[in-house]
Amino acid sequence: MMGRLQEEKVFKDPVHRYVHVRDTLIWNLINAREFQRLRRIRQLGTSYVTFHGAEHSRFNHSLGVYEIMRRILSNFSRRSNFVITEEERLLCLSAALLHDIGHGPFSHSFEKVFHTDHEEWTQRILTGNTQVNAVLRRVSDDFPEKVAQMIGKTYPNKLLVSLISSQIDADRMDYLLRDSYYTGTSYGSFDLERVLRVLKPYEDKVVIKHTGMHAVEDYIAARYQMYWQVYFHRVTRSAEVILRNIFARVRYLHESGYSFVHNPKRFMPLFSGTMTIEEYIALDEATVLYYMSEWSEEADEVLRDLCHRFMDRRLFKYVEHDENADNPQEMQELKNLFAAIGIDPDYYLGVDSPSDLPYDVYRSGEEGERTPIYLLMPDGDLKELSRCSVIVEAISGKRRYDHKLYFPLDFLEDGTRDQAIVQEIKRRLCI
Amino acid sequence: MMGRLQEEKVFKDPVHRYVHVRDTLIWNLINAREFQRLRRIRQLGTSYVTFHGAEHSRFNHSLGVYEIMRRILSNFSRRSNFVITEEERLLCLSAALLHDIGHGPFSHSFEKVFHTDHEEWTQRILTGNTQVNAVLRRVSDDFPEKVAQMIGKTYPNKLLVSLISSQIDADRMDYLLRDSYYTGTSYGSFDLERVLRVLKPYEDKVVIKHTGMHAVEDYIAARYQMYWQVYFHRVTRSAEVILRNIFARVRYLHESGYSFVHNPKRFMPLFSGTMTIEEYIALDEATVLYYMSEWSEEADEVLRDLCHRFMDRRLFKYVEHDENADNPQEMQELKNLFAAIGIDPDYYLGVDSPSDLPYDVYRSGEEGERTPIYLLMPDGDLKELSRCSVIVEAISGKRRYDHKLYFPLDFLEDGTRDQAIVQEIKRRLCI
Amino acid sequence: MMGRLQEEKVFKDPVHRYVHVRDTLIWNLINAREFQRLRRIRQLGTSYVTFHGAEHSRFNHSLGVYEIMRRILSNFSRRSNFVITEEERLLCLSAALLHDIGHGPFSHSFEKVFHTDHEEWTQRILTGNTQVNAVLRRVSDDFPEKVAQMIGKTYPNKLLVSLISSQIDADRMDYLLRDSYYTGTSYGSFDLERVLRVLKPYEDKVVIKHTGMHAVEDYIAARYQMYWQVYFHRVTRSAEVILRNIFARVRYLHESGYSFVHNPKRFMPLFSGTMTIEEYIALDEATVLYYMSEWSEEADEVLRDLCHRFMDRRLFKYVEHDENADNPQEMQELKNLFAAIGIDPDYYLGVDSPSDLPYDVYRSGEEGERTPIYLLMPDGDLKELSRCSVIVEAISGKRRYDHKLYFPLDFLEDGTRDQAIVQEIKRRLCI
Amino acid sequence: MMGRLQEEKVFKDPVHRYVHVRDTLIWNLINAREFQRLRRIRQLGTSYVTFHGAEHSRFNHSLGVYEIMRRILSNFSRRSNFVITEEERLLCLSAALLHDIGHGPFSHSFEKVFHTDHEEWTQRILTGNTQVNAVLRRVSDDFPEKVAQMIGKTYPNKLLVSLISSQIDADRMDYLLRDSYYTGTSYGSFDLERVLRVLKPYEDKVVIKHTGMHAVEDYIAARYQMYWQVYFHRVTRSAEVILRNIFARVRYLHESGYSFVHNPKRFMPLFSGTMTIEEYIALDEATVLYYMSEWSEEADEVLRDLCHRFMDRRLFKYVEHDENADNPQEMQELKNLFAAIGIDPDYYLGVDSPSDLPYDVYRSGEEGERTPIYLLMPDGDLKELSRCSVIVEAISGKRRYDHKLYFPLDFLEDGTRDQAIVQEIKRRLCI
Repeated sequence: MMGRLQEEKVFKDPVHRYVHVRDTLIWNLINAREFQRLRRIRQLGTSYVTFHGAEHSRFNHSLGVYEIMRRILSNFSRRSNFVITEEERLLCLSAALLHDIGHGPFSHSFEKVFHTDHEEWTQRILTGNTQVNAVLRRVSDDFPEKVAQMIGKTYPNKLLVSLISSQIDADRMDYLLRDSYYTGTSYGSFDLERVLRVLKPYEDKVVIKHTGMHAVEDYIAARYQMYWQVYFHRVTRSAEVILRNIFARVRYLHESGYSFVHNPKRFMPLFSGTMTIEEYIALDEATVLYYMSEWSEEADEVLRDLCHRFMDRRLFKYVEHDENADNPQEMQELKNLFAAIGIDPDYYLGVDSPSDLPYDVYRSGEEGERTPIYLLMPDGDLKELSRCSVIVEAISGKRRYDHKLYFPLDFLEDGTRDQAIVQEIKRRLCI
Repeated sequence: MMGRLQEEKVFKDPVHRYVHVRDTLIWNLINAREFQRLRRIRQLGTSYVTFHGAEHSRFNHSLGVYEIMRRILSNFSRRSNFVITEEERLLCLSAALLHDIGHGPFSHSFEKVFHTDHEEWTQRILTGNTQVNAVLRRVSDDFPEKVAQMIGKTYPNKLLVSLISSQIDADRMDYLLRDSYYTGTSYGSFDLERVLRVLKPYEDKVVIKHTGMHAVEDYIAARYQMYWQVYFHRVTRSAEVILRNIFARVRYLHESGYSFVHNPKRFMPLFSGTMTIEEYIALDEATVLYYMSEWSEEADEVLRDLCHRFMDRRLFKYVEHDENADNPQEMQELKNLFAAIGIDPDYYLGVDSPSDLPYDVYRSGEEGERTPIYLLMPDGDLKELSRCSVIVEAISGKRRYDHKLYFPLDFLEDGTRDQAIVQEIKRRLCI
Repeated sequence: MMGRLQEEKVFKDPVHRYVHVRDTLIWNLINAREFQRLRRIRQLGTSYVTFHGAEHSRFNHSLGVYEIMRRILSNFSRRSNFVITEEERLLCLSAALLHDIGHGPFSHSFEKVFHTDHEEWTQRILTGNTQVNAVLRRVSDDFPEKVAQMIGKTYPNKLLVSLISSQIDADRMDYLLRDSYYTGTSYGSFDLERVLRVLKPYEDKVVIKHTGMHAVEDYIAARYQMYWQVYFHRVTRSAEVILRNIFARVRYLHESGYSFVHNPKRFMPLFSGTMTIEEYIALDEATVLYYMSEWSEEADEVLRDLCHRFMDRRLFKYVEHDENADNPQEMQELKNLFAAIGIDPDYYLGVDSPSDLPYDVYRSGEEGERTPIYLLMPDGDLKELSRCSVIVEAISGKRRYDHKLYFPLDFLEDGTRDQAIVQEIKRRLCI
Repeated sequence: MMGRLQEEKVFKDPVHRYVHVRDTLIWNLINAREFQRLRRIRQLGTSYVTFHGAEHSRFNHSLGVYEIMRRILSNFSRRSNFVITEEERLLCLSAALLHDIGHGPFSHSFEKVFHTDHEEWTQRILTGNTQVNAVLRRVSDDFPEKVAQMIGKTYPNKLLVSLISSQIDADRMDYLLRDSYYTGTSYGSFDLERVLRVLKPYEDKVVIKHTGMHAVEDYIAARYQMYWQVYFHRVTRSAEVILRNIFARVRYLHESGYSFVHNPKRFMPLFSGTMTIEEYIALDEATVLYYMSEWSEEADEVLRDLCHRFMDRRLFKYVEHDENADNPQEMQELKNLFAAIGIDPDYYLGVDSPSDLPYDVYRSGEEGERTPIYLLMPDGDLKELSRCSVIVEAISGKRRYDHKLYFPLDFLEDGTRDQAIVQEIKRRLCI
């Protein structure tokens, strides 16, 4: 097993003041190229088009999750009912640091179109021929596999797994605070130190001391606010719709034999399904943005226009769209109207709703895998959080939707289209 | 002249809380593609390798400078001795917003190697065939030229020029606060609202009400701290040395007829000296990072290695290096020793000193162009700041150096080199 | 009417950065002795015994409410549908500044025991022979009366009244932020600038632009958190119980003809019901604390002990106490047990529940006087907030209780009492 | 020796987030009545008349100093060259917590007039018949004496003494951050965690790792700014002048046999020189403010007026006053002029200069007792800070003065005085 650094290293961090590294293992993981690559993947994808401050990377966030994990373990280690081996301590820290290592560029849209899965890539990077793997293997031969299990939630020790993946884990705590900080909003702030103080190991769970009920309630409310105020922001979703359509168009063009002036060679393994780790690692956001800039000069008009829109932030407008109420025929007619004036509805009429995004505001017991948050009552009983908190109860188990229909208003108003059809479209969109 | 927006727009900003836009002109400038491109140029270049939080863009900063200018003008407009036309108000706001529009990727290193000049490109973008120019021209035909003059400091109204370019201007005030915020350091913080309150228009100058002396002193000290603690950080400079050498190697390879597997086509106009605005605009940091990733697979070993170093953050180490004390012969001998063990000293032995960087901590009267800061005393006299403040006096007019010699320690220790020579090198470097 | 100050005055304020004063009227009100007296009345009464940072005064808060009102009016004045006379502008500012002018020392306990009413005293101070009244009268003869009406909610313009007294008014906005800041908790924070931006005058109401729903929801949740985490904190309530009993004991002693060594002469007019404004003004917290220190040397043991407890922070402990479930006979038996071991239950056994305190977390329509918060929807309709927000809906109209029984555990454990009875008491209290 | 608490206690603190208490000793000290009394003594005396936020108490600050000391010892304990016994650890923590225990109300003015000395009272409280003493004695019989030595700087271990009393000690670090926080100014902020990281025990000193030079420089500059912007603020000094004169008048009246309607009995032992600890403890700021309010109704016009001025914040105005330049005769003439129009110059004409206040911005080696700050250089040498920092060098060893002459402008302008003399006074004061 690797030892301690001669001298503690620190990273200046705006959220946690300092990130402290004392283990050689952690230091080496941070310096592995697959981890450094996270500097070239933004934490919030396209959110920066709405919140210009949100330009921070997953590197940034990953250090933060590690730091919170370090503090949790340090707190727990003072308790008599918590015993952890040195290997498991390193396991927790490594898993916290590496939990996002498999993320690709603009993950949400990318995965949707190309059917990649960042969790699968995380497993491959941890266990494949990588620098990260080589560093982990220095602990023990099966250590990379154990880290993969921790992140994949199959590691036998449920208590440790829940520190990185649960309704109240190091990952979420960090991203709420961090995304709040960088966007400049206050919605995601909560009292981290208080929450860490009331977290207790209890059998195979992490539970909350009952005196901390309001602190955790505040954390859940912060989460809810961040989803609606930041993560699901309509302008961000407009950029997301465009990005998704760019990817889809590229795939379509490739499949239909279009000859690219600027061949997106790094995307090819995606199409052929032969992508290696090496190739995946090279696919960062700089690459996507570079290609987008190349594509903005392609012959294909749709691709060219969408790329310009994304780069120059000429986004789609939106109107309310109740997917359930609307009948499919009306939607089809709208598409026909778009087509009739030369606007391809496959790329210029997009429905988006936040439930497409990983929405998991706390719902008690809804899904098997989702462990509820328990309060440890003075009498030693456990009580599920939403039974104690009216606020959590109100949010729990309710899926909220915010369906919107996105389209290029500027096209409709550029004066080059059949005015009668444009008017009909506007009438139907109520604009 | 363009009018007001129907409804004020705001940007959520972590530093100023909100950036307020009420003029159609400003709104349109922000949406121009040349301005949106600033999202793809980082404010602090390579500083993010040291301070992971410093991933913010020049877009971010430019909005902030605009906002400070807006507040200054709003304060001034309440004073009887300040009269400004509507055109000049827009001029100040536009100049504040666009002052960095000509910046290229990783400007410091880029300009040093390729001899481009961001100030020149600013002028070209403002007055050439661009969206920014088209928007500005809607105010009046000579408005783009006036904005260029404001930024170029040749506009006749010295008072207005000094709001954007002086020892205490909107640009500096914003970057100190913003770079502090994103790095997570507190060194650059000062009381912006107090400084804005004590700024007064006075004849053709902006002066400081004497009661604000300590507030301005604090601002100057904040600036000094940021230079030494952040901007000139040795680890950042190590990355800068590597980046410079990457650029130099690319230029060298091109000039020596090397055949690139991955031709950096967007760099070609740099070599031929024929770069158009369109081509310059396309040269953002995504492009440079993408090329770097391509170059990391080139046949040329030096280029390949340097690119890997930069991307994976395997930086050079450094030792003290007193340029004046050292005699040139010793340096030559050191280079020869490097060459003797197969390490090209042109790319692997770099001297860097902060005075190479635009260091301009306040020096009264040293350079003609640099207007001193004046305090307006109770008796109506003006008194130069460093005559009142011992701290400013201490910093003024003194150039400090921090010469360092950068080199790849890992090469020396990789066990493949002639040990006698390695030992001799180490002896000379005192490591 | 009084004019503008020659030069704007500012107060450095931790919450709003600066409080800006431009009107001579406001400047003179701040300098009136009745307003300066608010420096000697703490904003949060006894909360400082729990949160040592909460030592701020009502002077502090009153300036903040004024500043928020100033900003609201400044925002509104840019809207075409808002017209306000200069007198009404001054009226709003004065009412905001003076809304707490009638508060006495440790109001909650004080008013409960002595049956004074700070609202009534506010009216007397505004309209009686005071410096504040003299300053107000310089605007117009009926101006003091109008300010009194604004604060008393009887002023005809409901829109203006609601700016200072409603579910989302300048008073609450300031105290949430301010009490958060001084206690050092983050629970009360919300995005003030955003809330101010979405507040709109609409007929005789202030409504919320629908896009601001989540911002207001966050404000309501902040309020809820502050009540449970700060204002109703059990330790604070323990101090409050003791304080109340001190006041009650003093009244009792006076009424029963006890001869005080240190006669609390400033309390006498309270007993006789003849208190003048002058006498009320003199009754600040310094006076109460001084008397308490004197009383801690009185012959009466109960008074002496309670005063020592309060000053030296030897508070009562508490147990759960379900007032409804408990039968009165059990309570009487407990009192008898206390009495049997020489502990006077009237002063040493106190039930406290937060609903005794002014609890008014938003409840739609429950009480006639409480105007609901309306959202202004895109179609121009008004929609009551709790119909749009599940969180507000969850909190609305539900009174929560936290009944506790407070008692001196140290007395039970001092070893001087009949152990059998002590054990029986402990058994009944479940301790 | 006392042990650990069963469960760690925390105090929510705005500056350090939480103050952590694990030792029974510390918990008991905090609950001692002499320590609780510090809640009734403000940290910044009269500063609250200028900065309304500065209402925090010495209780508040004392907890902060303790917390910083706790962190320093926790950092040091990880170093091999630092060995400390359990008793000495408790000694450091106790001394940090109790260092201000002897402070009286409004110490600066109080001590000046009544010739008390808070350091002497600290010794008496620690070693006399007090609750604090009783708690300390439970560690060992000579423990109270050792704490007294630590605070009095006579304890043999110089290293430990310097943690609480040196140019860079826990006391100063806390008050800069705390006073900044409560005043709402940013001037006193510095990077506490970085400073704590670079502090190293070294032989009998605490030294600074050379890489921390700029962090310490920033701390020194913060200190300098706080002195000039907050502690020596001219408005605060005006209140201080009035307060001093109130005390002086009371003493004078007592000495001249004046018969007080409201006898200030708690001041009597001051006059007779017989004050007991018990009596001193009772003399808090509530008492002084209560007396002041009583005195504002005395027959003596001077006392009455001064008390009204202080309570209602009708302060003296000031003009520049160069004590050295002025000749004593001119001052005497001015006094005569004041006297001639019935204004007693002994109470209404006050010279104040910050050097009267405890001014100790870093001066290297000027006074024997003041240990310089040393940097630990890479070669193991120690280098005095001002030799490395131009900013510290600029501030070092230079006493700055800001002499002002304070007087009641309102008296001169009340229209009841001989106008010729008033004009002559104004001419001499240049107003």
